[in-house]
Amino acid sequence: MNCGAGSRLQKTKMLNGFKFNGIASGIKKNGARDLGLIYSEVPAIAVGVFTTNRVKAAPVLITQKRIRSGTAQAILVNSGNANACTGDKGMKAACQLSTTLARRMKIKEEMILVSSTGVIGVHLPVERIQGNIPTLIGGISPYKIEEFAQSLLTTDTFPKIVMKEVKIGNKQVEIWGVAKGAGMIMPNMATMLAFIMSTASVHPATLRNLLKEGVDQSFNRITVDGETSTNDMVLMLANGKAGNRILTRKSKEINRFRDSLFSLLFELARMVVRDGEGATKLVEIRVEKARSVNEARKAAFAVANSPLVKTALFGEEVNWGRIMAVLGRCGVAIDPGKVDISYGGVKVVKHGIACGSEEKAQGVLKQKEFTIVITLNKGKGCFQASTIDLTPEYVAINSSYRS
Amino acid sequence: MNCGAGSRLQKTKMLNGFKFNGIASGIKKNGARDLGLIYSEVPAIAVGVFTTNRVKAAPVLITQKRIRSGTAQAILVNSGNANACTGDKGMKAACQLSTTLARRMKIKEEMILVSSTGVIGVHLPVERIQGNIPTLIGGISPYKIEEFAQSLLTTDTFPKIVMKEVKIGNKQVEIWGVAKGAGMIMPNMATMLAFIMSTASVHPATLRNLLKEGVDQSFNRITVDGETSTNDMVLMLANGKAGNRILTRKSKEINRFRDSLFSLLFELARMVVRDGEGATKLVEIRVEKARSVNEARKAAFAVANSPLVKTALFGEEVNWGRIMAVLGRCGVAIDPGKVDISYGGVKVVKHGIACGSEEKAQGVLKQKEFTIVITLNKGKGCFQASTIDLTPEYVAINSSYRS
Repeated sequence: MNCGAGSRLQKTKMLNGFKFNGIASGIKKNGARDLGLIYSEVPAIAVGVFTTNRVKAAPVLITQKRIRSGTAQAILVNSGNANACTGDKGMKAACQLSTTLARRMKIKEEMILVSSTGVIGVHLPVERIQGNIPTLIGGISPYKIEEFAQSLLTTDTFPKIVMKEVKIGNKQVEIWGVAKGAGMIMPNMATMLAFIMSTASVHPATLRNLLKEGVDQSFNRITVDGETSTNDMVLMLANGKAGNRILTRKSKEINRFRDSLFSLLFELARMVVRDGEGATKLVEIRVEKARSVNEARKAAFAVANSPLVKTALFGEEVNWGRIMAVLGRCGVAIDPGKVDISYGGVKVVKHGIACGSEEKAQGVLKQKEFTIVITLNKGKGCFQASTIDLTPEYVAINSSYRS
Repeated sequence: MNCGAGSRLQKTKMLNGFKFNGIASGIKKNGARDLGLIYSEVPAIAVGVFTTNRVKAAPVLITQKRIRSGTAQAILVNSGNANACTGDKGMKAACQLSTTLARRMKIKEEMILVSSTGVIGVHLPVERIQGNIPTLIGGISPYKIEEFAQSLLTTDTFPKIVMKEVKIGNKQVEIWGVAKGAGMIMPNMATMLAFIMSTASVHPATLRNLLKEGVDQSFNRITVDGETSTNDMVLMLANGKAGNRILTRKSKEINRFRDSLFSLLFELARMVVRDGEGATKLVEIRVEKARSVNEARKAAFAVANSPLVKTALFGEEVNWGRIMAVLGRCGVAIDPGKVDISYGGVKVVKHGIACGSEEKAQGVLKQKEFTIVITLNKGKGCFQASTIDLTPEYVAINSSYRS
């Protein structure tokens, strides 16, 4: 089940052993929630995937170090400020916050993971946030996942929560995921912020591999604007409360868990791209029969990030010539005379030239979600990227982000 | 001197041995000029630089073949239709037009170069254009370069003409250039359409090398939207009418000719980017002290093409964090702690963090033209790219291009 904004499901459901909260701590000028906490009653198995951007925010550097132990008990997140490009002062700020949290919660500081999202290059208002930490801790509850999800948002228009259940042996295992997205999204081995919690008992190495593979098949296949953030991270905590026999890669039931986790990640990723800044459409760009998966990926992302393709999607124009032009410049070996292109199953290009069904394709373009299939007829590589259109709203949002 | 729209200079000046025309032939729906002709009374030395897009328009393929002879006498250009992705029918259409022109002008068909710009994937209305060729030829005149420049335009807002004079020995040599631009502009070894005519007498190999080098230092350093067109070409004709002693790379005066040609190309390229679709600002992105020129180029174009950087320019926001994020994702070896960034001479980032002059930089951002200098402090590579801001107008233009 997917729970978007307004859903009340999470008010009655709980995730055994986890508590959440999200409050306004004064980072955001508009008084919205900007400080969130995930707390696990017991030390949980913790794994993560992080941004490949060479410029890494302070919380990324700290969390990458702390997660090496393989366990964690709390995740402290703020939105409205990325704490990136803030130097030593930024590192100190993140540590001060987790020190305060550790003392108040009586857990080890190394068991706290930190995460931030928002504007780059501005220092965190540390004292103001510290002053709000007692309220944050005081209000934690098994029923506040929506408040937590809200505390992550920047230009997102709705909180993103997905919940899954899977039977492992005779035990019911839960997996919950929360994400934020909206802009600076073109993940590369990692993505914006996403937090996955599960009651499963899983071997740490197995969980690490599953998360990496799952992210590769979900968040690493979406783009909003071709930009990779300095703060991307996906963290997963598994507390073992379900009481299932520990899952390893050899377990009979690992595939069932894997399927649930992957479909949760896929759904969260789709929510992120659907809520991409200014989006009016979610379009799948599927490149087939490239010489290799790498070439298919390169071509798919080149098309998915092309401003001319994306504006044509917004304008609902069957301007397939722009797709051809991108294919020709993207560095992938194509033979223009072999390319076929279809919009939502309607073929408009055969062997590199128009094959007449543009009017029918026009109908596809009016839909909110559809797939463009590009067949290169050069080999067996295939890759699908999800993208959105480029709209005046995207420009409006991003030309006044800091004000 | 530069002659933009409205200048009347070209009404009285003439280029010895060259004639021009530009008429409406019914390709553009709005009845604007869309068919242009450059005619050289004598066979001229002809050299060209072409798009590196793997998808090449029919006129690119034909002109690349014909220019191998090293001479040409006419250039036939149409706008409103790129004649790209049009297969054999497109090749035949381009040939039919040059056959008609050759017969009517009584010159060899192989001496005619063809060039097109406009929408991709639509067939040319060959018969309609053929019907207009007598009018095109009938009206040629030494004083119609502005009409010719107008006939190239698509979403451009003004015709782009630059004229230079240079003394070679005791002879006055003229170089005139015309370009069109506006969108699908991120040249790569070539660019949109530009035509350079000169009365100089130059050795063909020397001219070829000069043009290639000059394009590399001008058109290959601009970007409007990161898109490389299927139709890009820069053609140059030199008719020798100035009567100077033939220029070779060893001539004493080659540097003077080179300087004039390069500054003409540079001025044309700047006009193209200044007239980039929807632009309100022209911004130079200068990357210094990269490990190599290639890395400087990669970083400069990554920043110059970033939608988040470009929307911040439109919004006049000193959002240098977005520049840091692009530097970190662009595949260039950077050390975040060594990066300095300044806007129009105002340093805002030192050693990767804010150094406080954001208010002063705010004033720079309000200017129509300025330079952002990014110093990586990793080596000696330097590259400067010219770009524009990303505006709602760019989205508006490109979401209704075909309608």
